[in-house]
Amino acid sequence: MHTNDAVIRPRYAETDQMGVVYHANYLVWFEVGRCEFLRALGYTYRQLEADGVILPVIRAEVDYRHAARYDDDLRVRTRLRKLAGARMELGYQVIRLSMGSEEVLAEGMTAHAFVGRDLKPLRLRTANPQMWRLLSSCLEEVAHE
Amino acid sequence: MHTNDAVIRPRYAETDQMGVVYHANYLVWFEVGRCEFLRALGYTYRQLEADGVILPVIRAEVDYRHAARYDDDLRVRTRLRKLAGARMELGYQVIRLSMGSEEVLAEGMTAHAFVGRDLKPLRLRTANPQMWRLLSSCLEEVAHE
Amino acid sequence: MHTNDAVIRPRYAETDQMGVVYHANYLVWFEVGRCEFLRALGYTYRQLEADGVILPVIRAEVDYRHAARYDDDLRVRTRLRKLAGARMELGYQVIRLSMGSEEVLAEGMTAHAFVGRDLKPLRLRTANPQMWRLLSSCLEEVAHE
Amino acid sequence: MHTNDAVIRPRYAETDQMGVVYHANYLVWFEVGRCEFLRALGYTYRQLEADGVILPVIRAEVDYRHAARYDDDLRVRTRLRKLAGARMELGYQVIRLSMGSEEVLAEGMTAHAFVGRDLKPLRLRTANPQMWRLLSSCLEEVAHE
Repeated sequence: MHTNDAVIRPRYAETDQMGVVYHANYLVWFEVGRCEFLRALGYTYRQLEADGVILPVIRAEVDYRHAARYDDDLRVRTRLRKLAGARMELGYQVIRLSMGSEEVLAEGMTAHAFVGRDLKPLRLRTANPQMWRLLSSCLEEVAHE
Repeated sequence: MHTNDAVIRPRYAETDQMGVVYHANYLVWFEVGRCEFLRALGYTYRQLEADGVILPVIRAEVDYRHAARYDDDLRVRTRLRKLAGARMELGYQVIRLSMGSEEVLAEGMTAHAFVGRDLKPLRLRTANPQMWRLLSSCLEEVAHE
Repeated sequence: MHTNDAVIRPRYAETDQMGVVYHANYLVWFEVGRCEFLRALGYTYRQLEADGVILPVIRAEVDYRHAARYDDDLRVRTRLRKLAGARMELGYQVIRLSMGSEEVLAEGMTAHAFVGRDLKPLRLRTANPQMWRLLSSCLEEVAHE
Repeated sequence: MHTNDAVIRPRYAETDQMGVVYHANYLVWFEVGRCEFLRALGYTYRQLEADGVILPVIRAEVDYRHAARYDDDLRVRTRLRKLAGARMELGYQVIRLSMGSEEVLAEGMTAHAFVGRDLKPLRLRTANPQMWRLLSSCLEEVAHE
């Protein structure tokens, strides 16, 4: 699997008085994309946390090109960009579907550390070999440290 | 102490495409009012949780009369309405200050259970006698069960 | 149509440090339920606004029974409870699906005024007869004023 | 004026089940910082919008170093980093005050276009010379296009 699409319908709560979606919500949609990306791999983020691995965001970037609007038919397209022993990086596109074509509204990334419940770093390869293999399978080239 | 006022400046994030504050945010402002109400009593909610007492909301009501707008100068006026062994009830007014007068934009309430970290019910009077006394002092008549 | 179910997957953003969904988000989910209720009627809220009718919330109530958790499989079941010339009232249940059974986590309502773009009241029956008929069809007894 | 500090108290609503503030909220705090930065200049964002200039975010970046927690005593320190005819860039630090010292929890930036109510680009220098001068005064070197 190289990318996974999650469906997003912007909520009224997510709009602002500019009449478009408030920019911080794209980070929330990236989280939805990330969650569905993992589910499609066969290992939910919920299960990952239950198994003691937490993925705090350590960096985020978003480029906003066109505004999303209330009730648009959107997809968050998520892919794994980098995987290393102690962190990973995901890339996202927010896409509007309209009359059969796709319009990229925004692009961005999040970088994540692998940490335990105590928020201390851990190495995913040893802490959760199954998840490590699943993620590795998404990359053509895994960045070994 | 009978009421406490907390200052709120509606954020752009809190508006919606109607050009006013999205209604669910009033519940968040009630939370700010509640937090500052406890701080004014001399016992922060943060400390209360650290001491093992959590106050989940079990009921909420809001009446919306006039819309709050971005960057309005607001107060959330909070008071304790009822206190019982296993729960309490707070009342709120959201007030806009404008040229020396006060306009009530919304009114509401939240009811809270007293629970432990395991989310199981507990009796505040025995679990945290100090908080019980502080809260009791806010009421003229405490509803003993 | 008497009720409509909308699918909700609680987002990480919607949880709080109690480890469950923050209570104000149920009002956002009610909005999703309301939006999908109208879509199922064949007239989206987006279209309704484009046609000049806005539905601000004038009252909201929520009773919280059991906590929703991250990534639960939820439905918001929405029905029209009352319809009058200048306002309507919707009822909601938040339901968790789990091993074939349904658990009601919360119940609530929102009351809405019918207003124009200037936020002034209007009568839906004359302002938008089509929507009036669609909503009326959801009620066995319409509360005529 | 080179920087301006806005006060932030993380709300319970802003935490997540990791027990810390959810990362997307830092972008909302940046907005608070930006709003107070302009207020300190003597020209509120509210007034700027009323005068027909809107500042949509076209890029955002955040680096998260240490987690903010519920009810921390925080400041968002905002400064203008770049000003050009059609856009500007602001820089932010989220700082925790604790026993007299400052700890930087996160750093980031937002880039903004200057647009009119129709969301079409405009040149700030001609559209609003007063705001242009105020912003220019914050920079030692203004990047003329």
